[in-house]
Amino acid sequence: MPAKDEFTVTPYEVKGRIDYARLRELFGTEDLTAALLDRLRAAADRPLPPSLERGVYYSHRDLGLILDAHAKGRPFFVYSGRGPSGPLHTSHLLAFELCKWFQDAFGAEMWIQITDDEKVWAKTDLPRSETYRWGLENLADLLALGFDPKKTHVFFDTRSIAAMYPLAVDVARKIPYSTVKAVFGFPPSTNVGLVFYTALQTVPCFYPSWVAGKDVPCLIPCGIDQDPHFRVTRDLAERLGYPKPALLHSQMMPGLLGQDRVMSTTGEQKDNALFLSDPPKEVERKLKKAFTGGRATVEEQRRLGATPEICSVWALWKTKFAPEKAEFDQITGDCRSGALLCGDCKGMLIERVNGEFARHRAAREAAKAWMESTIVEHPPHGMDVRKAGAETPNRPVDS
Amino acid sequence: MPAKDEFTVTPYEVKGRIDYARLRELFGTEDLTAALLDRLRAAADRPLPPSLERGVYYSHRDLGLILDAHAKGRPFFVYSGRGPSGPLHTSHLLAFELCKWFQDAFGAEMWIQITDDEKVWAKTDLPRSETYRWGLENLADLLALGFDPKKTHVFFDTRSIAAMYPLAVDVARKIPYSTVKAVFGFPPSTNVGLVFYTALQTVPCFYPSWVAGKDVPCLIPCGIDQDPHFRVTRDLAERLGYPKPALLHSQMMPGLLGQDRVMSTTGEQKDNALFLSDPPKEVERKLKKAFTGGRATVEEQRRLGATPEICSVWALWKTKFAPEKAEFDQITGDCRSGALLCGDCKGMLIERVNGEFARHRAAREAAKAWMESTIVEHPPHGMDVRKAGAETPNRPVDS
Repeated sequence: MPAKDEFTVTPYEVKGRIDYARLRELFGTEDLTAALLDRLRAAADRPLPPSLERGVYYSHRDLGLILDAHAKGRPFFVYSGRGPSGPLHTSHLLAFELCKWFQDAFGAEMWIQITDDEKVWAKTDLPRSETYRWGLENLADLLALGFDPKKTHVFFDTRSIAAMYPLAVDVARKIPYSTVKAVFGFPPSTNVGLVFYTALQTVPCFYPSWVAGKDVPCLIPCGIDQDPHFRVTRDLAERLGYPKPALLHSQMMPGLLGQDRVMSTTGEQKDNALFLSDPPKEVERKLKKAFTGGRATVEEQRRLGATPEICSVWALWKTKFAPEKAEFDQITGDCRSGALLCGDCKGMLIERVNGEFARHRAAREAAKAWMESTIVEHPPHGMDVRKAGAETPNRPVDS
Repeated sequence: MPAKDEFTVTPYEVKGRIDYARLRELFGTEDLTAALLDRLRAAADRPLPPSLERGVYYSHRDLGLILDAHAKGRPFFVYSGRGPSGPLHTSHLLAFELCKWFQDAFGAEMWIQITDDEKVWAKTDLPRSETYRWGLENLADLLALGFDPKKTHVFFDTRSIAAMYPLAVDVARKIPYSTVKAVFGFPPSTNVGLVFYTALQTVPCFYPSWVAGKDVPCLIPCGIDQDPHFRVTRDLAERLGYPKPALLHSQMMPGLLGQDRVMSTTGEQKDNALFLSDPPKEVERKLKKAFTGGRATVEEQRRLGATPEICSVWALWKTKFAPEKAEFDQITGDCRSGALLCGDCKGMLIERVNGEFARHRAAREAAKAWMESTIVEHPPHGMDVRKAGAETPNRPVDS
């Protein structure tokens, strides 16, 4: 069910100025309340990351059940994915940075899905060799966030299909075409790969439970545009005897060129995002032309202050580049009061971004050394399709 | 486009009394003429098998192109498949026996596809462990026909998916849902696995060309009900740069209980077919109650003769159990003249079938020793998804 008010939000189309409160109502998700965040902070026994503290994540499904499981000493895992159609920009890291926080705070296993098959099916101009190549590039960037190699597992779809396929067969059997059509709004011209694909996006949600032979709850931080995929998954979960995945939904990140333009990796949208591979000069060029909430003149801004809420530079401070509360509050206050001019703010951010990117690129090279070891190519011994135990269990949900 | 006259013929439904000439027109296939059979006989330099000589195969697409390729010294391969939902009966062997003849006569490589995934998707009552188990059972029966272990390769879908998937991704991208809906007549409730599946049935048609890096034409003997799958494949072939597979179409085999009832492996249809696993007493019981073209009384039959064309016993002689022309003509003549009574004819056939089945079961046990070695689980070195060469070539068709 795509949201069809003044905007459209599906995994395959995000359009218009999104009313997030209305979108949450349309999707039927729950408000991420201060009380629930308090509970999460207490369970983690550490400060929340900026994306939670500052409202970038604003909606959820069943986060409470994850905290219930944790309270009973039962492990959960985190899962996020990437459709590799081009280089990563800072917004792409949002869900993964949150996953990393959950891994650090709760010791959670991390599952990353690289959907190079989906991108071949969703984009008609990218051959498989390109989505594969981008998959490897993107994966190095994601692992470089600091995931624990021993607790991080990757489904790289075209390479992991032997491990994923038995579960995918069972899952696909339970998804009628009519559901996919209704949830994603696919026209009849949609290729049969994309029609099938949602089954593969469900596999990581169930796989750890399948392998463990008992319920291992799944938590998925994602853009709210991905919710429809997991609505299908949640509807299936009980029928297949697996726990429903819990979700944390973020708002879509505004682009550098303004709030109405979601960051994108393609075409003329290039200047709308900071790519992790952008060299310092390119970061500088892009940020210098970025849309802000500033006034027409310096005099006016000193007098009236600027408006951070509509500013793409402030959004970068908020979500990633000013993780310390004191610094972020200072920037926000000085912006609003007129003490900080946009040019100076941009200069500070350029320096910060280039420092972070340099650190990131070093971590990226280091991650390449162990990247291959994270890619799952076969189901674990005993779960092979040849073994009787390979049958997907139809277990009652663990209570 | 299911044929919708007095009958329905699709890969997922065969219903009504089939008018085969009309079906050929509806499907737009070519008549398998005596001239073309003469050409095939000459190229093979040996007698044709009964199923070709006696009109069981009656339609084709592009058989002439296969013979053209052979005349130029270019190899072709044969491909047939089995959806493993139960034990094999004699009709299931028809296409494979013809493949075996092509392997013997032309040294053709044989590709067998075991579609255990499709059967999970097409039948709601069979779990994956069952279709997998039947897949192994059926494969042993097929290999026991005498295929050359060095020239026979098996795609066992759930086990071979790592090898098949790169090509399947490329193929699926080119198949719109609307095509699948039109070709197979799928209702919206059809699961997304079955919607995707036709891409996997196309993979074996192209795989040898993909691996060889040049055109290796494909010939597919199959029941005419399977033609819709390969119509999709043929439409795709040129766009993906592969040769269109050629087809040889057989009529559907009548069941033991009469012409209107196609042999089936399920439910009360059990007595309608001879399963390869039927013990001698069961063969005897089934054949004794089989529908014949005999008369009401012995006296009448001696005087007027019987009608082989409507007789299920005669159909078994014709397609499999009387390969020698002299014997078959004798049986047919004696039936028509009244010299051979149905009871005696059945007695002869019971003995023949039980002898064949005993030989088959011994060959089946022998085939199990090398069966595993035929199952393809990885693409050949250098065609791995990780290699640049893994890209599906968009080559112009070899001329």
